[in-house]
Amino acid sequence: MENHEKELSAILQTITAPDAAWEEKAKERTSQLVMPPRALGRLHEFSERLCAIQGTLKPSLAKKAVVVMAGDHGVVEEGVSAFPQAVTVAMVHTFLAGGAGINAIARSVGADVFVVDMGVAGALDPSGMPNREKFISRKIAPGTANFTKGPAMGREQAAKAVLAGYGTASALFDKGLDVLGTGDMGIGNTTPSAAVGAAVTGEGLDGMVGRGTGVDDKGLARKKDAIRRALEVNRPDPEDGLDVLSKAGGFEIGGIAGLILAAAARKRPVVVDGFISTAGALIAALLCPVAKDYMFAGHESEEPGHRLMLSHLGLVPVLRLGMRLGEGTGGALAMGVLEGAVRMFTEMMTFAEAAVPGKE
Amino acid sequence: MENHEKELSAILQTITAPDAAWEEKAKERTSQLVMPPRALGRLHEFSERLCAIQGTLKPSLAKKAVVVMAGDHGVVEEGVSAFPQAVTVAMVHTFLAGGAGINAIARSVGADVFVVDMGVAGALDPSGMPNREKFISRKIAPGTANFTKGPAMGREQAAKAVLAGYGTASALFDKGLDVLGTGDMGIGNTTPSAAVGAAVTGEGLDGMVGRGTGVDDKGLARKKDAIRRALEVNRPDPEDGLDVLSKAGGFEIGGIAGLILAAAARKRPVVVDGFISTAGALIAALLCPVAKDYMFAGHESEEPGHRLMLSHLGLVPVLRLGMRLGEGTGGALAMGVLEGAVRMFTEMMTFAEAAVPGKE
Repeated sequence: MENHEKELSAILQTITAPDAAWEEKAKERTSQLVMPPRALGRLHEFSERLCAIQGTLKPSLAKKAVVVMAGDHGVVEEGVSAFPQAVTVAMVHTFLAGGAGINAIARSVGADVFVVDMGVAGALDPSGMPNREKFISRKIAPGTANFTKGPAMGREQAAKAVLAGYGTASALFDKGLDVLGTGDMGIGNTTPSAAVGAAVTGEGLDGMVGRGTGVDDKGLARKKDAIRRALEVNRPDPEDGLDVLSKAGGFEIGGIAGLILAAAARKRPVVVDGFISTAGALIAALLCPVAKDYMFAGHESEEPGHRLMLSHLGLVPVLRLGMRLGEGTGGALAMGVLEGAVRMFTEMMTFAEAAVPGKE
Repeated sequence: MENHEKELSAILQTITAPDAAWEEKAKERTSQLVMPPRALGRLHEFSERLCAIQGTLKPSLAKKAVVVMAGDHGVVEEGVSAFPQAVTVAMVHTFLAGGAGINAIARSVGADVFVVDMGVAGALDPSGMPNREKFISRKIAPGTANFTKGPAMGREQAAKAVLAGYGTASALFDKGLDVLGTGDMGIGNTTPSAAVGAAVTGEGLDGMVGRGTGVDDKGLARKKDAIRRALEVNRPDPEDGLDVLSKAGGFEIGGIAGLILAAAARKRPVVVDGFISTAGALIAALLCPVAKDYMFAGHESEEPGHRLMLSHLGLVPVLRLGMRLGEGTGGALAMGVLEGAVRMFTEMMTFAEAAVPGKE
């Protein structure tokens, strides 16, 4: 193994599952809260899992941030997206200016937004940026290679991308964040995400590939064809996360996988957004299966393959609102629901405290 | 008509539909926001309806409150609930002390909680209450009559209950609230709610009646039998909201209907909670069909009949999380999602403002 892969391997050895004993203690507390047994449905599942993850009966999601991983994709030269590649750079500026969908939704739940250049093709000069303290440069390369002709990136680059996401997220957790949400930006990135999804789950391309930002029928056919060729040319090993990432993925997908691994290593929850983020989650789960126990699926995207990816991971989404923007918007919105569950668990009185008679 | 019914009739004449022109203007703005066309799915439906309701392109859900309507039910003597009637009074105190599920969830979305005594059987002395400014006494009577033996209340009492909810909510809107959520408390109140649901929708009792706070099989059989007898004895007219409310409802259900009508009259949105609240919504929609246009269904309850009620009203819930507590918890949680939609709509930059290239 080369250097980056060795470093990643050593990290993966340190990650352990959440402590199920805290979940049992949390269930005991839930049974004492002043309401009929488990009357708040999935809010109990959320709050009790958060107790296990954070190792406490006083879980908190007070300090929240979304990390938008940005990267470009060589496969756009195959005509797989409805938007030009220059949008990636322009949207990074919009995130920092606070004017994108993720900024507005993150503000509504009290979450900060950070933007990471994992591999944007265009030049990003931090000196002219607003809120440049929210910008983190971890560029692996200026966009991936066109994966219809060979791997999207080298294996060492894949390991480096995961480590970059891991390092970025670890630093944020170490500054006191309770939870991170994943986010993505990159014109064309539903194409590698669908390729990762198909490679890992074994599902066919008709169910896995959707219209992304809105390609027409011809664009959709080009997209499926590009993915079919990429999988034939590269033959990713569905058991090997770095192999799938390097052959079928993208730098921001690697960064998202690393962010998720950092959450698992720091014993903090991560709210996974939509299609691109869940491709990152598939890579993280291949590298370290217990990472799944730290994930919450924020929402189910309108992109058809997302449902198949979530099912493969065994995750049931918090929200189903037909969203398909990415950027972390669905995960951010779900953070508000998860915080409601935590506030319920930590702030409700017990039957004894409230002096309310119990069941007859 | 008697006095209260006349007063209510006069109010109903003043209620008009939201202005669809604002929805069209809102759709035009949505199309300019910096994202692929309508990429945020139902968030667009929410934000555009809120523009129409509030008559503006700058809708706001900043000032929020949940109003918990409390009342007791004579039918509890038929053994239809798993909890004793004394819980209603005890929970009113818990709401005012800030220790119930609705208090915690409302705090998490920045909503205030008010409690209205619409017809609690036990004595409620405000002088000893914490936060007594949050308590509103509009008691119609100390609990309804046992509706297996005759109407739950008189027709004038039904009109008075609706007017009490209307007056309470109108006063809150006049103080500057942007949105209200409905809430309920009352041991036994899934029984009249199911009776209202069956009477209005025409659905059979097997689909409409559930376990409420958790009755066992025998309790469920008693509950269905009580509702069957109530509908036979009283024969509510499914076209007449006051007739259904008086024969099959409850004082808090009438208060909820009145709150919804106040929202429609003041051109403000109302987030309807679960099973009991939606029984109130059915009454409001019978009294004034355009009131439906001001309603958002906060969630779909685990109580099986709720789905049938929502479908009858043509409402698609914001959340589906298996909740069945009531109190307004599902509506309050949904307020956070709706506020996210509003923040997105009002705070996102346009393509032009962000200088982002459009679709190719």
